[in-house]
Amino acid sequence: LKNIVEGFHRFRTEVFPQQAEFFRDLANAQRPRAMFITCADSRVVPEVITQSAPGDLFVTRNVGNVVPPYGQMNGGVSTAIEYAVMALGVHHIVVCGHSDCGAMKAVLDPPTLESMPTVKAWLRHAEVAKVVVQENRCSCSGRSTLDVLTEENVVAQLDHLRTHPSVAARLASGQLFIHGWVYSIETAEIKAYDAEQGCFRPLDSDGPVPMATPRPRYNLR
Amino acid sequence: LKNIVEGFHRFRTEVFPQQAEFFRDLANAQRPRAMFITCADSRVVPEVITQSAPGDLFVTRNVGNVVPPYGQMNGGVSTAIEYAVMALGVHHIVVCGHSDCGAMKAVLDPPTLESMPTVKAWLRHAEVAKVVVQENRCSCSGRSTLDVLTEENVVAQLDHLRTHPSVAARLASGQLFIHGWVYSIETAEIKAYDAEQGCFRPLDSDGPVPMATPRPRYNLR
Amino acid sequence: LKNIVEGFHRFRTEVFPQQAEFFRDLANAQRPRAMFITCADSRVVPEVITQSAPGDLFVTRNVGNVVPPYGQMNGGVSTAIEYAVMALGVHHIVVCGHSDCGAMKAVLDPPTLESMPTVKAWLRHAEVAKVVVQENRCSCSGRSTLDVLTEENVVAQLDHLRTHPSVAARLASGQLFIHGWVYSIETAEIKAYDAEQGCFRPLDSDGPVPMATPRPRYNLR
Amino acid sequence: LKNIVEGFHRFRTEVFPQQAEFFRDLANAQRPRAMFITCADSRVVPEVITQSAPGDLFVTRNVGNVVPPYGQMNGGVSTAIEYAVMALGVHHIVVCGHSDCGAMKAVLDPPTLESMPTVKAWLRHAEVAKVVVQENRCSCSGRSTLDVLTEENVVAQLDHLRTHPSVAARLASGQLFIHGWVYSIETAEIKAYDAEQGCFRPLDSDGPVPMATPRPRYNLR
Amino acid sequence: LKNIVEGFHRFRTEVFPQQAEFFRDLANAQRPRAMFITCADSRVVPEVITQSAPGDLFVTRNVGNVVPPYGQMNGGVSTAIEYAVMALGVHHIVVCGHSDCGAMKAVLDPPTLESMPTVKAWLRHAEVAKVVVQENRCSCSGRSTLDVLTEENVVAQLDHLRTHPSVAARLASGQLFIHGWVYSIETAEIKAYDAEQGCFRPLDSDGPVPMATPRPRYNLR
Amino acid sequence: LKNIVEGFHRFRTEVFPQQAEFFRDLANAQRPRAMFITCADSRVVPEVITQSAPGDLFVTRNVGNVVPPYGQMNGGVSTAIEYAVMALGVHHIVVCGHSDCGAMKAVLDPPTLESMPTVKAWLRHAEVAKVVVQENRCSCSGRSTLDVLTEENVVAQLDHLRTHPSVAARLASGQLFIHGWVYSIETAEIKAYDAEQGCFRPLDSDGPVPMATPRPRYNLR
Ligand SMILES: [Zn+2]
Ligand SMILES: [Zn+2]
Ligand SMILES: [Zn+2]
Ligand SMILES: [Zn+2]
Ligand SMILES: [Zn+2]
Ligand SMILES: [Zn+2]
Repeated sequence: LKNIVEGFHRFRTEVFPQQAEFFRDLANAQRPRAMFITCADSRVVPEVITQSAPGDLFVTRNVGNVVPPYGQMNGGVSTAIEYAVMALGVHHIVVCGHSDCGAMKAVLDPPTLESMPTVKAWLRHAEVAKVVVQENRCSCSGRSTLDVLTEENVVAQLDHLRTHPSVAARLASGQLFIHGWVYSIETAEIKAYDAEQGCFRPLDSDGPVPMATPRPRYNLR
Repeated sequence: LKNIVEGFHRFRTEVFPQQAEFFRDLANAQRPRAMFITCADSRVVPEVITQSAPGDLFVTRNVGNVVPPYGQMNGGVSTAIEYAVMALGVHHIVVCGHSDCGAMKAVLDPPTLESMPTVKAWLRHAEVAKVVVQENRCSCSGRSTLDVLTEENVVAQLDHLRTHPSVAARLASGQLFIHGWVYSIETAEIKAYDAEQGCFRPLDSDGPVPMATPRPRYNLR
Repeated sequence: LKNIVEGFHRFRTEVFPQQAEFFRDLANAQRPRAMFITCADSRVVPEVITQSAPGDLFVTRNVGNVVPPYGQMNGGVSTAIEYAVMALGVHHIVVCGHSDCGAMKAVLDPPTLESMPTVKAWLRHAEVAKVVVQENRCSCSGRSTLDVLTEENVVAQLDHLRTHPSVAARLASGQLFIHGWVYSIETAEIKAYDAEQGCFRPLDSDGPVPMATPRPRYNLR
Repeated sequence: LKNIVEGFHRFRTEVFPQQAEFFRDLANAQRPRAMFITCADSRVVPEVITQSAPGDLFVTRNVGNVVPPYGQMNGGVSTAIEYAVMALGVHHIVVCGHSDCGAMKAVLDPPTLESMPTVKAWLRHAEVAKVVVQENRCSCSGRSTLDVLTEENVVAQLDHLRTHPSVAARLASGQLFIHGWVYSIETAEIKAYDAEQGCFRPLDSDGPVPMATPRPRYNLR
Repeated sequence: LKNIVEGFHRFRTEVFPQQAEFFRDLANAQRPRAMFITCADSRVVPEVITQSAPGDLFVTRNVGNVVPPYGQMNGGVSTAIEYAVMALGVHHIVVCGHSDCGAMKAVLDPPTLESMPTVKAWLRHAEVAKVVVQENRCSCSGRSTLDVLTEENVVAQLDHLRTHPSVAARLASGQLFIHGWVYSIETAEIKAYDAEQGCFRPLDSDGPVPMATPRPRYNLR
Repeated sequence: LKNIVEGFHRFRTEVFPQQAEFFRDLANAQRPRAMFITCADSRVVPEVITQSAPGDLFVTRNVGNVVPPYGQMNGGVSTAIEYAVMALGVHHIVVCGHSDCGAMKAVLDPPTLESMPTVKAWLRHAEVAKVVVQENRCSCSGRSTLDVLTEENVVAQLDHLRTHPSVAARLASGQLFIHGWVYSIETAEIKAYDAEQGCFRPLDSDGPVPMATPRPRYNLR
């Protein structure tokens, strides 16, 4: 823990004094632009990837950037979604997977989960992606199963996201936008899901940002 | 989303190229020093507070930095703990609360949760802290209920953390250390829980770091 | 029960003998064309509405034609879906709501559910439709809230249907088609959901059948 | 889906006009005589077997005509029971199994369920019947295990039915009657459970209908 | 705790030495005659009421002598039943309620449970008895509601008991007997449920013991 | 059941008359000194071991003297704890394991649980003790694994006990004391957990009773 405590002292004595006013303004309320759901993996830091400052992103992180479907037993991710939409009124939710994800590897190699029953149960929420990949394997020529699974997992979690009442209501009226990303640690590329085309496209193209948001059914004007 | 996508482009074109080698080294494995469990609040960025780099911290964030007790139905937080201890072998777990926490305010003001049933159900995991504060209210003179509740919530989540098999096993043999912190957004102070004394003490004192880890019962030598 | 037993005797002595061979052919296997998910309401008989014979439709019926999202605790509807897709290989799933639905009325009038806690809990799966309607109320001019809710409930259950692994896998490869219908008891009309347009259109138009199936992402040819 | 849509058109243009008045009378309320719980199997159509018209039977169908016991987590079947008894006031509930049931075969051959985890979990509600048959196997000479299991499953589901508060209350006062049937697809026979004798007897005997209803403990006169 | 520790010392130094051989015989196995399920109430000591010695009764006690129905989520009582029947092979199970039961009083007076959410949820398993009593109230003239509820609760728990696979299997073959008792603290009377008559009769009558066991359906001879 | 009914008659005719007044005083309320949580094992009779009279101990017994952690789904043990602390105001809770415990043996020999799925699921609450013992095996030289596991199970259940809100609140203010015991059937010894030392010590030493209660954080004086 020595490094962490020293890091904190450095933050407190060197970084914070230069931005004390900024933090004082933050002290009594948060107004984040977006919600960011990503993996707990230490290499995927949302604020670094998006060069965001404290106060910008409402962040929930878990193993495999999973969004359980809304149900009778809801947990931490469902709570964060409801809070972000209802209490904070965010307008964007990003579900972000990443390359070399330990959770995705485990989904492909179940025996590694035998000693981790909790992880195994949790990753049932990614099972749907695995079934999609398995049943359509031959059609993914030229790409690794892990890469395809990582993308399909993001698609599946977007489908889960749409079952949450707060999300569905604001999608129906065009007030909320959802995004599915996959981040590559090695190359710093992000691919985003384009629901219309049914595929992922690079986020840094010059054209319009790929959208995973379904067409709104109501017009609030 | 414009700011976020622009931030990403800035990261990709300005920040990443300077550290391309660092990221390439990270591309195939993570070896984080510690697990960090904190609130989804946008103002609490673990990597900023501890001046950590990508790869340093395995992070899980949820509303109220809750750790549900280990049970028959386990979710994302329990999964992250099991994965961090069993698959990654972290030696430290920090549970970090913070000032001005919306979750803690909601615990004190239940009517605000009526329109958010999922949040309400989730915060039952913090109920224990509320009961502690309510039954001992008169003894906390001179401090706000919110501050006391925030600390008691961290103590409660540490107690929950100890019910996880992977954690209990390594605590028993002195291989794992647990920490309970409260971070102040306005002042950049951190108070850490001292289990022996039963109170929180500033982290930046010159003396030894306050410890929440119970005495090991086995000696692995 | 007298009517029912007499009805059975009539079936056994008058109807059955004329079709004994047909039933004998059915005796050892079922090969239904489609799965039909509708309300338990006594006025909505799938085989009558679609003039289907025994052996044609795999049917599951419950209060409110609900499809719970796939989760860690799955029940009868999820079981029927998995069985229909995996064991029977159906190619179509119809989710069919109906006019004058007691479940939809109850969703709009929660006090009627106070003495029925189980029904109340179950209808949380339709909560999402209610939230959609409530937040977009002003935009539905000219139609009753009950009618809009009944349609939105079918849309919501289609979204839930997509979270089931067996369904998602076959949707991805274009092997399964899903349909959202609302049946009017009084007029014998059916409206079907057109996902592209985001609205319901009459099923008996001469043009193509409205489709709720998302675009496949894989090509199995 | 072509057959189904064509069937609907036939219903709408040929069948419905002849009974338009009948359907108009049904349009605003249902007053079913009985509740019918049976398998989702496409060959078991309650309205055909009992020659019932729309409006006669409140129907819930699932894989294996299962009635989960009343518990802390209740689903679709429990909901339908509570609704039928409390909101509709039905006086009879029929639990109806059938010959050649895929669910019963699966209970006897668990490996077939390995790829269908949801079905497997659901059929734990029929486990009790399997244990009964296994522990008493030698006494069932002359009958197939499948036939005995199918009957025992109906007995088990009747026992489950009695744990539902709404059912138990009306059984105690003699206001509700429960029935356990097994329908043979090939021969159009129905056997009904006689609780007093502890065995199934043909429904079409001239004598009194076999009864599964326990003796009432209260006299409401 | 002083009394308890002193009681233990008295047991250890005065009682145990006189029966040391008896306890030594017990040290390596238990072979209890019966399972006893009763309330946690301090005044109801199964071994005193039945003058049983250590080794005679396998005992599980909880608030309200509840037996949850067998389901997908089973807990301590279900575990004890399965263990008693399968691992120990007991031939009798007694469910024993008692006079002046705090749990039964709470069922009749729900507001007292507001501060005890766990107790409230647990007593939903006794809800069925309350509904029976409420719907048949007028017929119980001359007896207190509490007394009738206490009896009906025992009847309900016997119904729950029959849903457990291990119990159902051995009831079907006549190898297991179940009993429903109500014990009066003040008068030391026990009334036992007579399922044939649908009523409770004193246990100390000279005639045969009242039986709650249903007729076996198999003959293992 | 003959022995039990005869035992009851003996109690009623011989024992009760001598203490009729004592029982009459108990008839309208219980005021137990302590709560006792122990195994359902027939050889472990709390009232015998502590020489307690009816009215002294509030007792809950289950397979393996398990205390599930407080969670979203709470059962009989959690109910008994909440009732004991909140409704009865007990000041002591004893968790008592014992020698030759069938549950502990089963934890060490999982195949024996294959035919008892409910027992298997329940004993996951003791899994934490098993993991502790397995990971620290070499350090327990000179003692049987069963003995160490039995002790560790008591320590684990004490940790679980602390997650219950009612318990945590009164521990924090020093109003409640918790105790972890292991009782030897053969020798009538009890060892008690000393949390300060992290080990079990004989209860019958002349010194102070070993304490498992954590230091209070509030002073109610
Ligand atoms: Zn990952
Ligand atoms: Zn917070
Ligand atoms: Zn309906
Ligand atoms: Zn079937
Ligand atoms: Zn009681
Ligand atoms: Zn034991």
